[in-house]
Amino acid sequence: MSDNLVISIDAMGGDNSPRVVIEGINIAIKHNPDLRFLLFGDEAQINPLLKQYSKVAKVSKVIHSPERVKNEDKPSQVIRNRNTSMYMAIDAVRSGRAKAIVSAGNTGALMAISKMVLKTIKGIRRPAICTIMPHLSGQYVMLDLGANTECDAVNLAEFAIMGNIFAKHALDIEKPRVALLNIGAEEMKGKEEIRQALKILKNPLVNINCTGYVEPHEIANGTVDVIVADGFTGNIALKTIEGTARLIVSGIKSAIKTSILAMLGLPLFFSVIRKVKKSMDPRAYNGAMLIGLNGLSVKSHGGTDAFGYSVAINNAAKLVRQNFVETIRQEVEAVDLDEINQESIYEGYYL
Amino acid sequence: MSDNLVISIDAMGGDNSPRVVIEGINIAIKHNPDLRFLLFGDEAQINPLLKQYSKVAKVSKVIHSPERVKNEDKPSQVIRNRNTSMYMAIDAVRSGRAKAIVSAGNTGALMAISKMVLKTIKGIRRPAICTIMPHLSGQYVMLDLGANTECDAVNLAEFAIMGNIFAKHALDIEKPRVALLNIGAEEMKGKEEIRQALKILKNPLVNINCTGYVEPHEIANGTVDVIVADGFTGNIALKTIEGTARLIVSGIKSAIKTSILAMLGLPLFFSVIRKVKKSMDPRAYNGAMLIGLNGLSVKSHGGTDAFGYSVAINNAAKLVRQNFVETIRQEVEAVDLDEINQESIYEGYYL
Repeated sequence: MSDNLVISIDAMGGDNSPRVVIEGINIAIKHNPDLRFLLFGDEAQINPLLKQYSKVAKVSKVIHSPERVKNEDKPSQVIRNRNTSMYMAIDAVRSGRAKAIVSAGNTGALMAISKMVLKTIKGIRRPAICTIMPHLSGQYVMLDLGANTECDAVNLAEFAIMGNIFAKHALDIEKPRVALLNIGAEEMKGKEEIRQALKILKNPLVNINCTGYVEPHEIANGTVDVIVADGFTGNIALKTIEGTARLIVSGIKSAIKTSILAMLGLPLFFSVIRKVKKSMDPRAYNGAMLIGLNGLSVKSHGGTDAFGYSVAINNAAKLVRQNFVETIRQEVEAVDLDEINQESIYEGYYL
Repeated sequence: MSDNLVISIDAMGGDNSPRVVIEGINIAIKHNPDLRFLLFGDEAQINPLLKQYSKVAKVSKVIHSPERVKNEDKPSQVIRNRNTSMYMAIDAVRSGRAKAIVSAGNTGALMAISKMVLKTIKGIRRPAICTIMPHLSGQYVMLDLGANTECDAVNLAEFAIMGNIFAKHALDIEKPRVALLNIGAEEMKGKEEIRQALKILKNPLVNINCTGYVEPHEIANGTVDVIVADGFTGNIALKTIEGTARLIVSGIKSAIKTSILAMLGLPLFFSVIRKVKKSMDPRAYNGAMLIGLNGLSVKSHGGTDAFGYSVAINNAAKLVRQNFVETIRQEVEAVDLDEINQESIYEGYYL
């Protein structure tokens, strides 16, 4: 398997594992013939599926893991259990047997184990969860989505630097516009750590195109490419988007049901709703990255289907090919955020 | 004007003032013949409009104010200027000439001046901004929407108590289900102040139906009636809802444009979109309340139209009739949140 790109898979993570996982691999290999997989999980469940999917069997090696991380497990309960499919899959990246790990399992556990096993990149204090989202005319990168509930200015600045690199690679944008999520556009708005992070990011030494603050209702307009928030705020925004989308789609459906005229046009509606759903299909954006680690760890949505899972695999493979982790390492090493922060505080004192 | 309900109006606040304001009053008085208005603002602009709207002229008294608060003014710049229409309108509530004030002007200034002039209710440390929003099967109350960027556990518990009373009165719910906005349902999730606020609210002495945490994607399901957050988080959630709604509606429109089949059904679509828009019409929810003050101060959206403005007036009148401020005062006096908080911390220490 030496010339190929090996991805380590937590085959037991997610709502319909290992079936969805195997089916996802079956889709991913159509466009990625060089991919090879280490499947960690229960042999008794995986092997019968590989008999159904012989193409997957050809490019995979099953490594039995006696246990699995459950959704309700607290990270602290499972972090040191080396017998779970999640732990073993992550450890394959540490040992160099695989270039990336993909899991649809418990997010908190995946972050905790990935951080402990892979360690953070030198100079990065906190890894973050990072994903790609749709706006009216394209896509944007958003982080942190929930790894760090509370963050200081340097943490936020680190997220901005990592998000900037992620947007360059994943969205192919040469000079991404990076902004801090805030409740107003004026410099004095928001929390102290956000204001201080802006000062750091405006320092020419940081060398990113920081456009200031962005308010949530402006995100849809596509005026920024990278949105930076602490994990609490980012998670609130992400889940609010999810809930609002559901509310509006349900509203449309019940409006159709109460209108006889509209009922006649039902097939037309469905074609439009399908299009809208496709353009905003969460499956097409599946695969959040745990960014800032010495190795690629990708989180698939737990409830995704085979297509969604294949997208997470594709994303992992793309980032490996772009040598993403090494690029982050270099760009982070090039700036000393703590020094810039001290300088900014000092400047602020005399302003 | 003694037997009538007098409302004080900042006639110069909002994007299309004073025209929208006068037209809004014209709508509101159709259903509220007992309302009388004190109109604070530029006589030269208001009087010609009152000639057009003679019914409004009959129930209004114009009081000239030489200045106005602009949208870009910082609260600190205008808080002590007693010559603005906003200040004068708020002061009419303090002096007892009016029972409520409505303004579509600068939110930060309205909060700052209302707090300084009307003062907070004894026992309330921080007033909050509170509004009503739609979910799939009804409405819910949400606060704080931006008055307090950072909050401690006692602030959040106060918001919960005030939101509970607001939901009883404004939504006619006997025992509202109150929840704290958080990023997980488990007790250990989120920030320390949220966890501590939950302990306070679970204390039987507080006597509200606190159901725990609610995550943003669950709001649409209508499982809670009152959602409590710090002003930063609440504002992020509110603006994310606004942005997502715009993104989806634009997505639907462009999907229709790219489908010839759907174009044929355009009139049908418009009837449905109209219905959905109506059920989620932000104008129907216009009028956020500044809650926790010795007097009713209501904020209309700055960009609303006459119908939206009339809704804000109706809401103000309804809360006056229900003796809302006095009810809050009584319910807040009945509990000593600081003592309960100390008790909760003490208990937590031994857990």
